[in-house]
Amino acid sequence: MFTVNEYFDGQVKSLGFENSDGPTTIGVMAAGEYEFGTSSVEFMTVTSGEMTILLEGETEWKTYKEFETFRVEKDSKFKVKVAQATAYSCLYK
Amino acid sequence: MFTVNEYFDGQVKSLGFENSDGPTTIGVMAAGEYEFGTSSVEFMTVTSGEMTILLEGETEWKTYKEFETFRVEKDSKFKVKVAQATAYSCLYK
Repeated sequence: MFTVNEYFDGQVKSLGFENSDGPTTIGVMAAGEYEFGTSSVEFMTVTSGEMTILLEGETEWKTYKEFETFRVEKDSKFKVKVAQATAYSCLYK
Repeated sequence: MFTVNEYFDGQVKSLGFENSDGPTTIGVMAAGEYEFGTSSVEFMTVTSGEMTILLEGETEWKTYKEFETFRVEKDSKFKVKVAQATAYSCLYK
């Protein structure tokens, strides 16, 4: 029914589903620093905690709090720092 | 690290974690109708899709959309109807 995904030795876990908005994952990251790559445009919304993000080609880290969304371009990378367990919803377009 | 929970034969799946807000689960429900019970106050926020809710003791179903939150009292029950895969974040207080 729903996929369970695990990354970074279980430090990041997510559930995948699809509805009228499109394919989506909801997930949670343990405190730490991560790098992710994209294969489509991603709209990441923080749903609990906060994320500090460095998009590819940028030099300034930006912090996003609950219900704030950032866009990541297709075929790019981004770095994420979280100080505590932080949850997100990611919509793939 | 994070718990994976499954209810209603996998029709509902969630991930559990805790941060400075308190214990939280994020989850997704397949289209259908469900009844849940609470053992603490729960603040449920829809993060994708929409939920139609009947709280215990009420007679009117109410619909909550993305980023809308409803409160469920401790030791009560609530019914949920979802027309498509719908995700939520649930904070336990």
